[in-house]
Amino acid sequence: MTNSKIVLTGDRPTGPLHLGHYLGSLKTRLELQDKYKVYILIADIQALTDNFDNPKKVSDNVLEVLLDYLSIGLDPQKTTFVLQSAVPEIAELTVFFMNLVTLGQLEQNPTVKTEIEQKRFKGGIPLGFLAYPVSQAADIAIFKANLVPVGEDQLPMIEQTREIVRRFNRYYGNILVEPEAMLSKFPRLPGTDGKDKMSKSLGNVINLSDDAKTLEKKVRGMYTDPARVHATTPGNVEGNPVFTYLDAFDPDPKIVEELKTRYRKGAVTDAEVKERLIKTLNDFLDPIRSRRAEYIDNREALIEILRSGTERARKITATTISEVKAALSLKNF
Amino acid sequence: MTNSKIVLTGDRPTGPLHLGHYLGSLKTRLELQDKYKVYILIADIQALTDNFDNPKKVSDNVLEVLLDYLSIGLDPQKTTFVLQSAVPEIAELTVFFMNLVTLGQLEQNPTVKTEIEQKRFKGGIPLGFLAYPVSQAADIAIFKANLVPVGEDQLPMIEQTREIVRRFNRYYGNILVEPEAMLSKFPRLPGTDGKDKMSKSLGNVINLSDDAKTLEKKVRGMYTDPARVHATTPGNVEGNPVFTYLDAFDPDPKIVEELKTRYRKGAVTDAEVKERLIKTLNDFLDPIRSRRAEYIDNREALIEILRSGTERARKITATTISEVKAALSLKNF
Repeated sequence: MTNSKIVLTGDRPTGPLHLGHYLGSLKTRLELQDKYKVYILIADIQALTDNFDNPKKVSDNVLEVLLDYLSIGLDPQKTTFVLQSAVPEIAELTVFFMNLVTLGQLEQNPTVKTEIEQKRFKGGIPLGFLAYPVSQAADIAIFKANLVPVGEDQLPMIEQTREIVRRFNRYYGNILVEPEAMLSKFPRLPGTDGKDKMSKSLGNVINLSDDAKTLEKKVRGMYTDPARVHATTPGNVEGNPVFTYLDAFDPDPKIVEELKTRYRKGAVTDAEVKERLIKTLNDFLDPIRSRRAEYIDNREALIEILRSGTERARKITATTISEVKAALSLKNF
Repeated sequence: MTNSKIVLTGDRPTGPLHLGHYLGSLKTRLELQDKYKVYILIADIQALTDNFDNPKKVSDNVLEVLLDYLSIGLDPQKTTFVLQSAVPEIAELTVFFMNLVTLGQLEQNPTVKTEIEQKRFKGGIPLGFLAYPVSQAADIAIFKANLVPVGEDQLPMIEQTREIVRRFNRYYGNILVEPEAMLSKFPRLPGTDGKDKMSKSLGNVINLSDDAKTLEKKVRGMYTDPARVHATTPGNVEGNPVFTYLDAFDPDPKIVEELKTRYRKGAVTDAEVKERLIKTLNDFLDPIRSRRAEYIDNREALIEILRSGTERARKITATTISEVKAALSLKNF
């Protein structure tokens, strides 16, 4: 029995989803789709805010991301997949929301601040990038979403959305819903190189779409404990991504504990631990690979899933924008 | 025979139009509607950028502004009247354009800079206000307008629109049209108080909808030459708004010249000059008043003019946004 609460979440379609996405958000969505009305936005418009000079990168990844969703078991009967650019009501609400947030409030948003520093835009900060939290607030509010699953770094975004919604409701009447953040339970997954974050731009990812051969190669090349020169050198388990991955994906914690004990004593080779991880990840990825195989040559089916999801979504977004326009006393014809 | 060139112009619906609007823009539109395809946008969304705390002020003035247009002789058979908030494609294009302009470029726009100083927003500059030139660029570009009639102070806006259009075409292919400014031939009309600009917020306006009694009262109270104490004191014609209005509206320049000569010599009373101006303005306003009377009690007809104009406009705006989305390789369904 699904709860009537609405969950909104989504991704920028800029590349394949990987194990970090799985742990950080996709896994949660699998649970949520059985409990709530879940809408997943493929945020192509938002992806353009930092890819406006390369729109094909975005459009080429729309169906790829959908394929990743379906392959992990998100079910179009339960979860509604929505293409952002096909929902003009989001742009309309964004324009109204832009009146309710000041330049200073956006410049102070810590998430945007950090991202702007990282991106080093040549020639200045594009308005679209600075304003993407406003557009994101519109994504959430147009669905009257109650819950938004996020990682810790996204909390300021939700706070900004809540502020905009409160301002809107104060000025124009109680039309929109103040969403709540659902903080992700899983810690961030490190990259195969041991760096803090698995990220396509760092080249340290294992994709959900990697085949067995690619996976094997990536795991064999993984960073472990750099101080450990021989299999007999006692090794560090903490901060060793091979063990972090085993902790996250191995269904048998006893075997993992035993490997850790031997590793600490210098009684196991890196190769043996990695062999276990290869098996674990293949066991995890195999059903994902088979579901992917069902769809990969059926672009028509993918398009139809996205088209019909977007159509269903637009019933809601059209209703919300009508209410918003009525609240603003705008003429409606 | 109308030229196939497209003209876009419009107003923020925030109050009655006055003689300053007539000279500055409306009179030109009467000529343009016989030569070009003219679209006039009633810019309710843009009006909200500095009236977001009072949306009724905007919505109450939508049909009033349309009534002003019709009363001066703008003809719905020739000019297409469009309600901005009923054209979601403008919001969609605005969001795409926001990626093509930097914060710095907007902050340097001299028109916006001056307006921000004047408005003194409490608590910071709303993003919507800072970004209204982007939204205005979308108004123009969505119609592929060739010509935009403007006053001198609006030239930086058109320059910004041209820059955004050029950037768009450079990134995504030659889809949009770079508009040209058509500079208004008429100098700015001073207020009845002699101040540089006729403006509702200064309370120094003569509205196109003023009746004869209101007009008479306003003209009798007009600022003239403050140094002139008696009818026999030689007076200044330059910078005297009574004469500026006569120059602009009196169909008989000989009579005006004669009055000026007598005024300079101290051989005419202020009252006589004002009498002439009252007659002149009543002659000008009478046909406007009769056309207004045809519509004033027929709200249905007004709504229908706006509805059908907006519908015609949306055939164009929908085509443009489809082309824009195709150029951005966005999925279309």
